[in-house]
Amino acid sequence: MKDVQKELPKHQIPIHRVGIKNLKVPIYISKMTGGEQHSVADVDVYVDLDKNSKGTHMSRLAIGVQKFIGHQLNKNVIVEIADYIKNKCDAKTCQIIYRFPYFIRQIAPVSKEPNIIHSDVEFNLTKNDSVNFDITVTTTATSLCPCSKDISEYGAHNQRSKIKLTARLDEKQFVWIEDLIHISNTSASCKIHSVLKRIDEKAVTEEAYDNPVFVEDIVRSCYQQLSKLDIKDFNVEVENQESIHTHEAYASIKKN
Amino acid sequence: MKDVQKELPKHQIPIHRVGIKNLKVPIYISKMTGGEQHSVADVDVYVDLDKNSKGTHMSRLAIGVQKFIGHQLNKNVIVEIADYIKNKCDAKTCQIIYRFPYFIRQIAPVSKEPNIIHSDVEFNLTKNDSVNFDITVTTTATSLCPCSKDISEYGAHNQRSKIKLTARLDEKQFVWIEDLIHISNTSASCKIHSVLKRIDEKAVTEEAYDNPVFVEDIVRSCYQQLSKLDIKDFNVEVENQESIHTHEAYASIKKN
Amino acid sequence: MKDVQKELPKHQIPIHRVGIKNLKVPIYISKMTGGEQHSVADVDVYVDLDKNSKGTHMSRLAIGVQKFIGHQLNKNVIVEIADYIKNKCDAKTCQIIYRFPYFIRQIAPVSKEPNIIHSDVEFNLTKNDSVNFDITVTTTATSLCPCSKDISEYGAHNQRSKIKLTARLDEKQFVWIEDLIHISNTSASCKIHSVLKRIDEKAVTEEAYDNPVFVEDIVRSCYQQLSKLDIKDFNVEVENQESIHTHEAYASIKKN
Amino acid sequence: MKDVQKELPKHQIPIHRVGIKNLKVPIYISKMTGGEQHSVADVDVYVDLDKNSKGTHMSRLAIGVQKFIGHQLNKNVIVEIADYIKNKCDAKTCQIIYRFPYFIRQIAPVSKEPNIIHSDVEFNLTKNDSVNFDITVTTTATSLCPCSKDISEYGAHNQRSKIKLTARLDEKQFVWIEDLIHISNTSASCKIHSVLKRIDEKAVTEEAYDNPVFVEDIVRSCYQQLSKLDIKDFNVEVENQESIHTHEAYASIKKN
Repeated sequence: MKDVQKELPKHQIPIHRVGIKNLKVPIYISKMTGGEQHSVADVDVYVDLDKNSKGTHMSRLAIGVQKFIGHQLNKNVIVEIADYIKNKCDAKTCQIIYRFPYFIRQIAPVSKEPNIIHSDVEFNLTKNDSVNFDITVTTTATSLCPCSKDISEYGAHNQRSKIKLTARLDEKQFVWIEDLIHISNTSASCKIHSVLKRIDEKAVTEEAYDNPVFVEDIVRSCYQQLSKLDIKDFNVEVENQESIHTHEAYASIKKN
Repeated sequence: MKDVQKELPKHQIPIHRVGIKNLKVPIYISKMTGGEQHSVADVDVYVDLDKNSKGTHMSRLAIGVQKFIGHQLNKNVIVEIADYIKNKCDAKTCQIIYRFPYFIRQIAPVSKEPNIIHSDVEFNLTKNDSVNFDITVTTTATSLCPCSKDISEYGAHNQRSKIKLTARLDEKQFVWIEDLIHISNTSASCKIHSVLKRIDEKAVTEEAYDNPVFVEDIVRSCYQQLSKLDIKDFNVEVENQESIHTHEAYASIKKN
Repeated sequence: MKDVQKELPKHQIPIHRVGIKNLKVPIYISKMTGGEQHSVADVDVYVDLDKNSKGTHMSRLAIGVQKFIGHQLNKNVIVEIADYIKNKCDAKTCQIIYRFPYFIRQIAPVSKEPNIIHSDVEFNLTKNDSVNFDITVTTTATSLCPCSKDISEYGAHNQRSKIKLTARLDEKQFVWIEDLIHISNTSASCKIHSVLKRIDEKAVTEEAYDNPVFVEDIVRSCYQQLSKLDIKDFNVEVENQESIHTHEAYASIKKN
Repeated sequence: MKDVQKELPKHQIPIHRVGIKNLKVPIYISKMTGGEQHSVADVDVYVDLDKNSKGTHMSRLAIGVQKFIGHQLNKNVIVEIADYIKNKCDAKTCQIIYRFPYFIRQIAPVSKEPNIIHSDVEFNLTKNDSVNFDITVTTTATSLCPCSKDISEYGAHNQRSKIKLTARLDEKQFVWIEDLIHISNTSASCKIHSVLKRIDEKAVTEEAYDNPVFVEDIVRSCYQQLSKLDIKDFNVEVENQESIHTHEAYASIKKN
């Protein structure tokens, strides 16, 4: 059977990234607190393509990901998948991205009612001669506006904030998803729960009012805390779904 | 050229709705305050299909919509489009839906700074022996939680609310988009602006704190106000993008 | 502590549905082929509210869902959750909706390469004096246009179809998710795989060309097959992401 | 009234970007073919913030955009808006992004039936000491798989492609949106129409079959054509919504 992908392309130009996006697979992952957690991931896989090949064999990318479905998802396994795919596709670089919700079990602040909350996580690994591994965690938290609080006789507008932290790691570095969630929560006005009884609602309302922050304050606090971790680079983005506007307020800082 | 659509289908079953979705077109529409407004709509068009035809001719649906692009969009024009399509497709029923953002010019409460805000509008018309016309308007407003206010020493959680009103009209009835936006805004804790100077921010913060409402209060207030309009039926849905949760709070009521 | 929710509302109007939307939780579910499968669900919960209560206690809805996270998700467990919530909220009706991806393990048609594919599933249960249970499964498949094939010298346009089947069950009826996926796949031009080697790609290309179907043909075939199941009612919707248009082609039929 | 934004922040760290996202406004823009076109844009505006200011005054960003709503949208006007905002916010850099659908009037290939089609456009301008202006146009087209065609007895899978071209311009350079749409259409298997009569459907089916392309072929053809324009840099991304998979096929190349 003819291998059209191997033919010479009309325009002999090397391609930076070719691959597949949004392949959905079940995963499981170890938790900082011990044990494992099941989730569902959307996966992207890319390889480079030299100038003399018309196409890559995309089925090999999907096979690579699916071969490792039985394994716990972590950096080492993603490196293994990347090596498998690089080898099968004759590529110099392979980039693999997993995006999935990650659940945290917590207790409400006063009633101690147990509740579960999720953050959105992305593992983004690039393997060529070396390994680059980015972990991105987007945590939802409450922010309360310092200006609104200060200038108003009473009350203060507050809203959902999406706090997105990316830690860029070299081959020896490591962070827990939980570490990044903690940095986000402690930079916001108050952390979020999925169950709040009335005594808890009173507590979070007052805590948020006691800790007003702009998007600017949140990114600076995250920057400050991320600077103390042993990581190569990082990026911080915050988006406030303003309760007094239809548009979002936004701030970002990156290190390097 | 063979007309495959006219062939007898394998299973001779009449089809309720067949058509096209998400055809994007430019539109213009008259404003309550006079003059016209340009916008962009996503359009769905459906016809029924009798049990003896394998398929409808979908190009005729798209042609029908595009033939009337130069016309001001209103109920009468949509009836004309529906009649054109019913005729071309030999259908008993034609349903046409336009979804588009609609802009309102307003001024900030204290500084009087002009600003523009949009609501999401849907015109949903069904033409068979009679005409049914639904207008749906989704307005964003601020809601502040009465429970949080009452039980807390200070502060109160508040957030964006999406208030969705549907007015169902018979052939003689009429409402302005602006009427539905007004009902939504006066049922929430405070209306929303796209520009608020500090003196305005103080005003809306305090206004929201003075008018706390649950999702339940919002739907009831909308119900009360919609009951006074000369319309056949209506539906109310409210979704609060809770600042203290990742999930939404929701309430709905319908008349008939 | 004051119970604001129990106060008399300003407008004493009963509310059809009040609750929470998009609460994300981990789930597991039994498979037709034996064993269990983990997934992640977005959950909505609604209760009715009598005219004399200002608000429902929404935390009880979230607690109800989370109390049962350790249990296998099925109709009986959702009835238990609904009973728990009805009781805690003093409600006559409780509706609970779970939306989640469901994975199927399959093999490529010729190479027999194993691969995993997902359908989107919704469990929608309403409990009042009786139980109504809707299962909706949205399956992606390939459709190839009979008209394009017939009138063209060679080739035929084809595309992704989203086939959405809802089976409405009374208290004694049952269907497997796999049953609905099977009906969808056998009504399309060809089923979809996540891994296809070249010999498989040849097979599915030819199979699709041999089985051209309009959206109308797909809904009629699904109707025909669903009619043979022991279920109360059903609904069929098909959306074709046309390769030759930016808009979608659509058809739907419902029984009752 | 206190100006909280001007206070010294807790962590004195400069912020790269702070601003607003998704402010919806009506726009109009000149067409290559003469005349003007109305549309609706989502606008993001960012400024930098020095380390000694707690916050920027976000209302000034929204005021800047709205002050120029009556003007035709083009590079010069966006520079004016950016200068206005830089000045009001005491910023060194201002970035402004407009995202909007842009309509093209065209005729079906054989029947000459007029029809309208849209591409998604982004104007992304950064003003500091100099001006950088990126135009991104995402065009939908048909792609037909060369491998599927070659190895199959008959037929070939084909699908919607999203072709996204970004041209990066320095202060003197210019491209029309229409130029980028033309490059995308001529790199795909066939361009897309919103109305196709049967004689047109035959034509596009056969044209696509005669011009099979991988995502890799499309990005290379776009690269080749973009290289001939007088522009500083560019980026090409193509995503195929595979008719035989639930995942997307993807390729990208960038120049510099």
